[in-house]
Amino acid sequence: MGSRKMRIGILSAGGDCPGINAAIRGVGKTAIVEYDMDVVGIVNGFSGLVEKETIDLNEQLLSGILTLGGTILGTSRLKPFKAVDGEDPQHKPDLIKKNYEELGLEALVCIGGNGTQKTASLLAREGLNIIGVPKTIDNDIWGTEVTFGFDTAVHIATEAIDRLHTTANSHKRVMVIEVMGHHAGWIALYSGIAGGGDVILVPEIPYNLDHVYECLMERSRKKKPYSIVVVGEGIEKPSKKSAGAYIAKQIRKNTGLETRETILGYIQRGGSPTATDRILATRFGAYAARLIHEKQFGTMVAMRNGVISSVPLDEVGGKVRLIEADNKLVEKGRYMGVCFGDCRK
Amino acid sequence: MGSRKMRIGILSAGGDCPGINAAIRGVGKTAIVEYDMDVVGIVNGFSGLVEKETIDLNEQLLSGILTLGGTILGTSRLKPFKAVDGEDPQHKPDLIKKNYEELGLEALVCIGGNGTQKTASLLAREGLNIIGVPKTIDNDIWGTEVTFGFDTAVHIATEAIDRLHTTANSHKRVMVIEVMGHHAGWIALYSGIAGGGDVILVPEIPYNLDHVYECLMERSRKKKPYSIVVVGEGIEKPSKKSAGAYIAKQIRKNTGLETRETILGYIQRGGSPTATDRILATRFGAYAARLIHEKQFGTMVAMRNGVISSVPLDEVGGKVRLIEADNKLVEKGRYMGVCFGDCRK
Amino acid sequence: MGSRKMRIGILSAGGDCPGINAAIRGVGKTAIVEYDMDVVGIVNGFSGLVEKETIDLNEQLLSGILTLGGTILGTSRLKPFKAVDGEDPQHKPDLIKKNYEELGLEALVCIGGNGTQKTASLLAREGLNIIGVPKTIDNDIWGTEVTFGFDTAVHIATEAIDRLHTTANSHKRVMVIEVMGHHAGWIALYSGIAGGGDVILVPEIPYNLDHVYECLMERSRKKKPYSIVVVGEGIEKPSKKSAGAYIAKQIRKNTGLETRETILGYIQRGGSPTATDRILATRFGAYAARLIHEKQFGTMVAMRNGVISSVPLDEVGGKVRLIEADNKLVEKGRYMGVCFGDCRK
Amino acid sequence: MGSRKMRIGILSAGGDCPGINAAIRGVGKTAIVEYDMDVVGIVNGFSGLVEKETIDLNEQLLSGILTLGGTILGTSRLKPFKAVDGEDPQHKPDLIKKNYEELGLEALVCIGGNGTQKTASLLAREGLNIIGVPKTIDNDIWGTEVTFGFDTAVHIATEAIDRLHTTANSHKRVMVIEVMGHHAGWIALYSGIAGGGDVILVPEIPYNLDHVYECLMERSRKKKPYSIVVVGEGIEKPSKKSAGAYIAKQIRKNTGLETRETILGYIQRGGSPTATDRILATRFGAYAARLIHEKQFGTMVAMRNGVISSVPLDEVGGKVRLIEADNKLVEKGRYMGVCFGDCRK
Repeated sequence: MGSRKMRIGILSAGGDCPGINAAIRGVGKTAIVEYDMDVVGIVNGFSGLVEKETIDLNEQLLSGILTLGGTILGTSRLKPFKAVDGEDPQHKPDLIKKNYEELGLEALVCIGGNGTQKTASLLAREGLNIIGVPKTIDNDIWGTEVTFGFDTAVHIATEAIDRLHTTANSHKRVMVIEVMGHHAGWIALYSGIAGGGDVILVPEIPYNLDHVYECLMERSRKKKPYSIVVVGEGIEKPSKKSAGAYIAKQIRKNTGLETRETILGYIQRGGSPTATDRILATRFGAYAARLIHEKQFGTMVAMRNGVISSVPLDEVGGKVRLIEADNKLVEKGRYMGVCFGDCRK
Repeated sequence: MGSRKMRIGILSAGGDCPGINAAIRGVGKTAIVEYDMDVVGIVNGFSGLVEKETIDLNEQLLSGILTLGGTILGTSRLKPFKAVDGEDPQHKPDLIKKNYEELGLEALVCIGGNGTQKTASLLAREGLNIIGVPKTIDNDIWGTEVTFGFDTAVHIATEAIDRLHTTANSHKRVMVIEVMGHHAGWIALYSGIAGGGDVILVPEIPYNLDHVYECLMERSRKKKPYSIVVVGEGIEKPSKKSAGAYIAKQIRKNTGLETRETILGYIQRGGSPTATDRILATRFGAYAARLIHEKQFGTMVAMRNGVISSVPLDEVGGKVRLIEADNKLVEKGRYMGVCFGDCRK
Repeated sequence: MGSRKMRIGILSAGGDCPGINAAIRGVGKTAIVEYDMDVVGIVNGFSGLVEKETIDLNEQLLSGILTLGGTILGTSRLKPFKAVDGEDPQHKPDLIKKNYEELGLEALVCIGGNGTQKTASLLAREGLNIIGVPKTIDNDIWGTEVTFGFDTAVHIATEAIDRLHTTANSHKRVMVIEVMGHHAGWIALYSGIAGGGDVILVPEIPYNLDHVYECLMERSRKKKPYSIVVVGEGIEKPSKKSAGAYIAKQIRKNTGLETRETILGYIQRGGSPTATDRILATRFGAYAARLIHEKQFGTMVAMRNGVISSVPLDEVGGKVRLIEADNKLVEKGRYMGVCFGDCRK
Repeated sequence: MGSRKMRIGILSAGGDCPGINAAIRGVGKTAIVEYDMDVVGIVNGFSGLVEKETIDLNEQLLSGILTLGGTILGTSRLKPFKAVDGEDPQHKPDLIKKNYEELGLEALVCIGGNGTQKTASLLAREGLNIIGVPKTIDNDIWGTEVTFGFDTAVHIATEAIDRLHTTANSHKRVMVIEVMGHHAGWIALYSGIAGGGDVILVPEIPYNLDHVYECLMERSRKKKPYSIVVVGEGIEKPSKKSAGAYIAKQIRKNTGLETRETILGYIQRGGSPTATDRILATRFGAYAARLIHEKQFGTMVAMRNGVISSVPLDEVGGKVRLIEADNKLVEKGRYMGVCFGDCRK
């Protein structure tokens, strides 16, 4: 009487992000090659579980996707624990549980950002065998030091800042660039330091525009011909304008310096992942398969002290990892002369 | 009694553009190495002529600038023939003539776009020995088939469109991208074709949004999961919004398709030029030196029938080179299935 | 009753090259969308005609391949008019004619380099309706001013040279880089000029190493800290070593300067085409479909005086387009201070 | 009675590497801005100390170098503790000590690889106040989990491998690519995994070519059309050929598969650093200044458990950090189906 193969599902949910396919391949190939499991792809995030839309994954389907941006499984922003008007709040979760069983799944890997990990932790409480894999260009998932997608986003944003230097210099301008990050300023911080930004504004550090004006005017007085201002999209502002447009307008009005803005937008999250993200996503994915094999359910793969391990999903859900007050890169940025818009030099 | 060296000036005016430094080097090295001239750099465009701000250029200063974006001479948008309130309209032109003589210049190379070539033609009429070198990412200078800066802009815009495909596909979205081009849609046309855009809107082809909706809905019906819409910033629109934001909003409202916009902005004009632009700028610059040597003043360097030659500045000034109705690439785009927003399929 | 659709075949032969897929899509979509033809893909170049291995191409199969390197049809180096030992020289040509008819083809598009166009002209003489599409990174096809693949190769080679500058500078070295080009030095010439090479050696210009040593020593005497030498692989040399290794060894031995070589190799012909090559390949492909529609068989698509047109295949076959003695870019390179290894400065 | 400023020196030695300038800027700006020190640049590595060749560094000289490849200070491979024939072994060390004092230095930052850190530890024993900063594209410095330069090298090598896929696929070939790494296979391992290599050979894992042939033949039998083999330059081999050429020849001879090699060479170490390397180098540099401020001499900046700290130079010198037998990425590579040339699957 031979043993039956274990059968697992994989889904990607939330915003797309470079490296999801590498992670899917990492989970799938490890599950198939190392642990001899059957692997099912759930289509379009949690929608695919509600609607029972799946594809069987084999080694061949998982080949050649390492370098592709986006996700071969599709994604959606459906939140199954958020009932639509008049809907029984247990309707979709129950449907998911029913389909999980009918599909013969014994574990489910949920690749996604904060929202997805929250849903993942709730599904774990419902009794499903869940493993989370953290993914977001914003790098703001609690419990892990880094997420894949971040390196690619920083790479793209830094290249853009590199290009702005020459235009800023030719025209003696202030160039403001807005980069992604709803809650956390990681992309702004990293691309700002890597791109040689003079001012960096992030949601976590309250800014006073007077300090920004003073910094820019002092550079002007010192005959530095131009300045680069990197702004995280999530900074607080008393305006409906985008963060970049708001800051640029204020600088223009209050310093008289010629100022232009660029809103970098969606190109930060598309395209082929960097080598670093491909490797991180592969490792995260492979580790997820191992967590299944070891039946460590209800956990999320995480980087801790530079080593890949796991954290309980219960600890992750509903939190956001922000830049803290004593962040070392902020400190080093100050040494490099960066103004963060607060009163400290 | 040896012969005195000829003394020439170079300036760059108008918006910055990848390849200006390569052109400056092209003019300067050819003038020095081949024709044994003295070369003076005029700082910040025509301002430098008004204020007599210059630097002497030698081989060493011209080395190592081939690959740099921006312009080592700086630029400005000063239009000397446009008098400020109460100013004598001949004030600045006269000052320029005086300084031209005091600097001992026997010729002046004006690197710039349409505005600069207009000024150049007026200075030629004032009796100065002028050679124009056409430069603009927009590729819309009359009299030449191509300008340097354009290849780099198309390269950057195409890379951006490449990145949008994966996000569009993951989310089954319409992605709208606005690229530069105030009057002419060359960047939109070229990057749209190169990036596999499904809809391309350019200022030269009047569009009917109903055709755009129909094209997008038909793609949707045919189960094509997403669409890319490339929009030139200069298209006509009944709105103060940017072209990209306007088109995206209309599509969203009228088709119900999930739609997002990206305004590519300044990164299209910064950074190191492509190999193609470095070569074109070098050739244009070197040819300008030759035109001086041959005393063919009052002309602009131009590409005609694939060969570098020249056109009278008088013919160039005040015109714009637009996409014509029988443009071959538009025709080929239609064969590839591109919708240009007009009634033809 | 109703008219039957015309049925055409497409094949790609010879070395791979960025843009082949864009050309296949250009031919195919134009044939289907504009001229309502049936399109058959021949697999692996002329082998597919001998072995009757084909796939039917439709719009869907032609979508999404614009940006892919390589060729979805595969390629081979089979030369059907070159009989293997003991084979009847007409064996393969006859087989091809038979299969062409059995497949119901009324025209055949041959995408390839010099060898492929030679075969294409011979098949045309055998009575097949042939259209050639020129393709090679080497840019050496007679009858056309440019081929797709070339811009991408120059782009990659120039990026590599850009990187060598910093290493050369840090170590005060001579860096020799060998780029592709068996017969013609186009890649060396263009990437050498675009990358700021100090010495450029191409097969078409006989070099004297003494001039090269003198150029490098003079740079050293002038305190220029390093030099870049760009070598086309096809230069003549009294050695079995690669061109780059040979030149580097000679420089090292005869000047005492620290010298290193890099053989760039296959990365010049792989990967996604540049925007410029995607557009050129699309246009060439679409034009090939039009030539079929107009029954202008026995011709090759070509760029002439900056305009796409055609040349008789008979004129193309067996020739190579080389850098001529009065090449303008060579002349301009000399003005920039480049040494071409000949006695002229 | 004001206090005198502390005066420190910085040098870069050994092979060049992307990020050295970012590190110099990190040390210098932190020393000047945060700790109010005077900073002296030593020219051309330890040669500059022997010959007392220096430049004073100020904020302005340190601006704008963040993104530059190479090193503004120059470098050399001089090993001062290795006496030339007939030289007193203490001659150069004594000279260095004398010059260190005459220059008024109170600390010296040595940016370099294994050789440099060895020299640094010996100078520390001689009584100089030394801080090491680890730098190498090879990532093989003992005591730190990562060095700057590595991310850039992996990025470039991965891009090259990406390009080879299309050529390999078009021609159904085995493509062998040799990447850098004299003693350690980190670049081969990381770029091999990131680039989707099928076989990865590194110096640390003894390989049996029969396993390699078997892997390639099995792929061929499974109709996988091509294979990518990534080879570290430092693998053992019974041949004077380069590692890549040797392996390619053996595969060709023993499998009959069409096989080509590429030796990636110097482009791996040149050009602008990635965002990741710019940040790492900045942080390492800034931390070095802090170690001086805290008088923790005789140490090297290091990444330990994902955190920047320091290790005694005595522990570092003379060792190399190799890929260990239980390396996690090797394990994950096996799950992805990679053959490492050993008998394990």
